[in-house]
Amino acid sequence: MNIAFIGLGTMGAPMATRLLQAGHRLTVHNRTRGREEPLAALGAARAASPAEAAAKAELVFTMVSDTPDVRQVVLGEQGAIHGMASGSVLIDMSTISPAATREIAAQLVERGIEMLDAPVSGGSEGAKQGTLSIMVGGQAEVLARVRPALEALGKTITLVGPIGSGQVTKAINQVIIAGTYAAVAEGMTLGLAAGIDLEAAQQALASGAAGSWVLTQRAGNMIQNRYPLGFRVRLHLKDLGIAREAARELGVPIPVAGYVEQLEVGLIKRGYGDEDVSAIARAVREAAGLT
Amino acid sequence: MNIAFIGLGTMGAPMATRLLQAGHRLTVHNRTRGREEPLAALGAARAASPAEAAAKAELVFTMVSDTPDVRQVVLGEQGAIHGMASGSVLIDMSTISPAATREIAAQLVERGIEMLDAPVSGGSEGAKQGTLSIMVGGQAEVLARVRPALEALGKTITLVGPIGSGQVTKAINQVIIAGTYAAVAEGMTLGLAAGIDLEAAQQALASGAAGSWVLTQRAGNMIQNRYPLGFRVRLHLKDLGIAREAARELGVPIPVAGYVEQLEVGLIKRGYGDEDVSAIARAVREAAGLT
Repeated sequence: MNIAFIGLGTMGAPMATRLLQAGHRLTVHNRTRGREEPLAALGAARAASPAEAAAKAELVFTMVSDTPDVRQVVLGEQGAIHGMASGSVLIDMSTISPAATREIAAQLVERGIEMLDAPVSGGSEGAKQGTLSIMVGGQAEVLARVRPALEALGKTITLVGPIGSGQVTKAINQVIIAGTYAAVAEGMTLGLAAGIDLEAAQQALASGAAGSWVLTQRAGNMIQNRYPLGFRVRLHLKDLGIAREAARELGVPIPVAGYVEQLEVGLIKRGYGDEDVSAIARAVREAAGLT
Repeated sequence: MNIAFIGLGTMGAPMATRLLQAGHRLTVHNRTRGREEPLAALGAARAASPAEAAAKAELVFTMVSDTPDVRQVVLGEQGAIHGMASGSVLIDMSTISPAATREIAAQLVERGIEMLDAPVSGGSEGAKQGTLSIMVGGQAEVLARVRPALEALGKTITLVGPIGSGQVTKAINQVIIAGTYAAVAEGMTLGLAAGIDLEAAQQALASGAAGSWVLTQRAGNMIQNRYPLGFRVRLHLKDLGIAREAARELGVPIPVAGYVEQLEVGLIKRGYGDEDVSAIARAVREAAGLT
């Protein structure tokens, strides 16, 4: 397919590379233009703006940092909307507000452009290996048309509802992760204070009802109080902010996620924003005087 | 071995049955004496008191409801301590206070009696099938002596530290379960309010960093707002009370577990104490007006 890819950061660059390697014709654009060069070296065309990148594309991907960035690259003065043809499709893979997603889609549809929201989990490693989990909101027939391109990027592609539903699912993901980290951190801190053999306890607990990816994969970080990346605290906080706003609009109280958000605010202030999100345990440990 | 088993409730009765079936000579006692009859029919001797049951036993199991019950059947006027010989071993498999466990062990050791604390997870089904997870506190050489008996009851037997450590591990288990349920309940409630395809979202999330036993096994309950047993809310609340006291003694704040404890207080007041602990989601849903 003729594809435009806008946003060549930690996630976008390896994703665009995979699309090229899958044989698609790719035009790339990035605000910091230098980041286009490695893709150009692999055969991608470069464009000076999102609108220019989108001009010949059947399919436009956006993978940028936050809600205002998506608004800018899609609807801004040089936004993709000004280049896209009627009948083309925009897939936003950023993690942004579900409500803003619906607003953007409404503006696109007036020009005959379809939109899917398709945020991902699986991190930069999943982006490189094409093993992302992709949560898609939008129409099934639109997804069917673009699925071959998405299959270059992810191993599970799940349609979860109408436009915006992918972002809701990503918000749910971050809310569940927040609470699960807090739960495991409280348990581990209790065990550290009691002086039990925590590695043995972790193994005994992991196969039962307390079991989770967090307990199996990240309790070791908590025991050692070392939090190598992983997924940065400051990015999780950004995503929790989106989840909090979405939850508020829907009238859903999420007190545990709200508590974790506050822990993360403190972690960032104290210089831990670039640690892995398992550093939530750092805050829980510190509250018990275990430093 | 010559074994006494005290406490023939939902957990104790199937456990005692398995010990009999494994070929041990068993004497049983239960406060409500009628519960001894099915075991007697299988070949167990009956005793009128814990002391009498313990009189010829190398090994005494206790499996009763709460801390005061263990104190009563071990240290009370007719307690096992008055029948046990020097060199015999008491294994308490109840879920009780770690601090009380250490106090009881201290009194036993004055009579030359060893103690292990060995609370379990896996429920009545695990008790029937001998697949419990057993978290053991105490001395390794004592565990080695009694391990053959424990192997009739559980598939994983993990030594987690000195006396009381099994109870700490069980407390950690309940704290982690509390927070994980709250986390998944917040996520599911957000999805319900947004009207997305939650079964699809659950599947997409379960294999990633948000994955847990709770998400895989119990999110369906939350979506349907039906909470069949399982493990009762009122029993989890009892265990969280033990965890809260242990955490307080150790100076460890556990705010998420404390919040879930309060949700459970409300659930019991409203008549949901005998639902499965996944009913934590009932409270989270209700707070969002989703009934």
